Amino acid sequence: MFDFTYFTPTKVIFGKDTEKRVAELIREFGGTKVLIHYGGGSVVRSGLMKRVTDILDREQIAYVTLGGAVPNPRLSLVYEGIELCKKEKVDFLLALGGGSAIDSAKAIGYGVANGGDVWDFYDRKRQATCSLPLGVILTIAATGSEMSDSSVITKEEGLIKRGYSSQYGRCKFAIMNPELTMTLPDYQTACGCTDIMMHTMERYFSNGGNMEITDALAEGLLRTVKKNALILRDDPKNYDARAEVMWAGSLAHNGLTGCGSDGGDWMTHKLEHELGGLYDVAHGAGLAAIWGTWARYVYKDCLPRFKQYAIRVMDVADEGSDEEIALKGIEATEEFYRSIGMPTNLRELGVTPTEEELLDMAKKCAIGVGGAKGSAKVLKEEDMLAIYRASM
Amino acid sequence: MFDFTYFTPTKVIFGKDTEKRVAELIREFGGTKVLIHYGGGSVVRSGLMKRVTDILDREQIAYVTLGGAVPNPRLSLVYEGIELCKKEKVDFLLALGGGSAIDSAKAIGYGVANGGDVWDFYDRKRQATCSLPLGVILTIAATGSEMSDSSVITKEEGLIKRGYSSQYGRCKFAIMNPELTMTLPDYQTACGCTDIMMHTMERYFSNGGNMEITDALAEGLLRTVKKNALILRDDPKNYDARAEVMWAGSLAHNGLTGCGSDGGDWMTHKLEHELGGLYDVAHGAGLAAIWGTWARYVYKDCLPRFKQYAIRVMDVADEGSDEEIALKGIEATEEFYRSIGMPTNLRELGVTPTEEELLDMAKKCAIGVGGAKGSAKVLKEEDMLAIYRASM
Repeated sequence: MFDFTYFTPTKVIFGKDTEKRVAELIREFGGTKVLIHYGGGSVVRSGLMKRVTDILDREQIAYVTLGGAVPNPRLSLVYEGIELCKKEKVDFLLALGGGSAIDSAKAIGYGVANGGDVWDFYDRKRQATCSLPLGVILTIAATGSEMSDSSVITKEEGLIKRGYSSQYGRCKFAIMNPELTMTLPDYQTACGCTDIMMHTMERYFSNGGNMEITDALAEGLLRTVKKNALILRDDPKNYDARAEVMWAGSLAHNGLTGCGSDGGDWMTHKLEHELGGLYDVAHGAGLAAIWGTWARYVYKDCLPRFKQYAIRVMDVADEGSDEEIALKGIEATEEFYRSIGMPTNLRELGVTPTEEELLDMAKKCAIGVGGAKGSAKVLKEEDMLAIYRASM
Repeated sequence: MFDFTYFTPTKVIFGKDTEKRVAELIREFGGTKVLIHYGGGSVVRSGLMKRVTDILDREQIAYVTLGGAVPNPRLSLVYEGIELCKKEKVDFLLALGGGSAIDSAKAIGYGVANGGDVWDFYDRKRQATCSLPLGVILTIAATGSEMSDSSVITKEEGLIKRGYSSQYGRCKFAIMNPELTMTLPDYQTACGCTDIMMHTMERYFSNGGNMEITDALAEGLLRTVKKNALILRDDPKNYDARAEVMWAGSLAHNGLTGCGSDGGDWMTHKLEHELGGLYDVAHGAGLAAIWGTWARYVYKDCLPRFKQYAIRVMDVADEGSDEEIALKGIEATEEFYRSIGMPTNLRELGVTPTEEELLDMAKKCAIGVGGAKGSAKVLKEEDMLAIYRASM
């Protein structure tokens, strides 16, 4: 096992009606002028925005609002948010929504606090040394951005999607009321469950530094999400299942399921990032569409892990060769994805890249990871291209 | 399931040689004058104290030292530490050791920062509103105090042992090098493993608000500690097993294994606290000596949990009545305790209370919990007395 740092300072307030505590929490972390950042109109239509602004009005906490954060959140909106914060002297960011609003808010926070071009951080040109404090009222369980140190932004010019991780990207608080996720479209719920599982699986399929307790936590988390994703497919208003998935979403990406590992593989995410940048597909669906092909491409190089996963998470019987067991685990995962309406290839995802686009995605992916990356198997540009082709 | 708050801001630095980063971490959290608080001579004999003070000397961070924190740490030493901190203008506490040094340091921190009599907090008379920042270099995996919000102090007058929990009791950082635990006597290692498991079991055996993901994490943690406790019995220098147990110790008591529950039962701890106050037994051994009797006294009132525990943690076959399965799980736990040299009753613990002492412990225990307490089963003074008697 490898040495690790575990640091999850985000204060989680979990349960029904917890959004009522938003003013108290903003004050606890020093906020006096707030930018409320959100995505589309759903938080307005649901009444959440009004409930929050009513509380801030009553508690005399000043605020401005900025909507428009989209899936694969855009750099131009980040720039807009930075200018707005400077003009309005905002000292606290409140994201209302899921990963898009949170990631966009994280980027705004870096930009305001550090100055210069915020894209530099995502383009690996410099490191942030501070940020604005950020709180979140979560409405989608998926990206885990509410407890993670990472954010992903897409630059419109060239459709370049890049992630950036920094300890300053941790939210000060995360309000999590599972009821707020009940109105999600089924497809978004399934995408979220896929993303949550993938955050754990990326860390799990590694060739170095595995820790028994981390495995036990990861496998328990995966089994829980798998079970509750099926419950939500049939009963979207099930509070307990919503709660299980919501809490799993945070634990899947706050570092807990990677303690002691070599950092994990992450190539499914990297391959999907290029898809997301080019086609603007839902992140979870993109992951599901790539994962099976990736898994078949790499499993022989990470066989003990794929076997363990098959048995402990996918309930594959411990019979036959290791390869057979591993393949059954991959098949069971794809079967699970299909059962919750997720695609298992690009065609099912609704994407049919040309040869030129495949070459372009592989090239951009290789550049994005600095040439080659992966732990289950190190992938170079030609491997990435082979996986894109095989996933058609 | 119940609403919950999860807040674990302690920065964990885990792995070999991590104590070398102590100066950097003290600076990160604003320390300029440090009290190094420790227990007996083992941190001196092992050379850890010299390594730490050499680093502080080199980095020109001033410090004073105070040893003498004993298991069931004493209030008189806390008072001494408070006076020393005031005299020396200490602004940062560094605990070197395990729960005794950490808990004693937490109490010193409350006393210095809040003023007044620090025992007030433990005696439920008032709440702390601040504390001195505290870091720890952990040398024993057991109490989880390095990530928990709690501490336990014993007042010599009347031998009263009381716990106090506060968000200000969280350590700023915890340096965890599993190698530092390798020189522990086998008995202390086994006591630590027992304490770690009990922190999770206290939360697990509850009659309200159980959450599937929390159960999965708790069960995974318990299986991991059980397995690695046996490895350490036979191979105390096994680094990986030391690491598994050390990290489990933190996760068992930082709140993770209680999310969504009603808070847990905690009566084994409360019953043991009186034993520890009166006889100064090792905490883990005291817990093992009490747990089986407690479990037999309460299991019928919490049958589904005892059954689930038996099957998922103790590998009991899912055959026979629920009561039979539950009892087999209790027996398997006692068998496990015996296999690592832990007692399963007071006699094996080396304690033979008189009838008067039994009455006194039950009375003090009832007062300590405010009359009655428990979730698996609510226990009153007469129940506590019955358990003490049956555990002889």
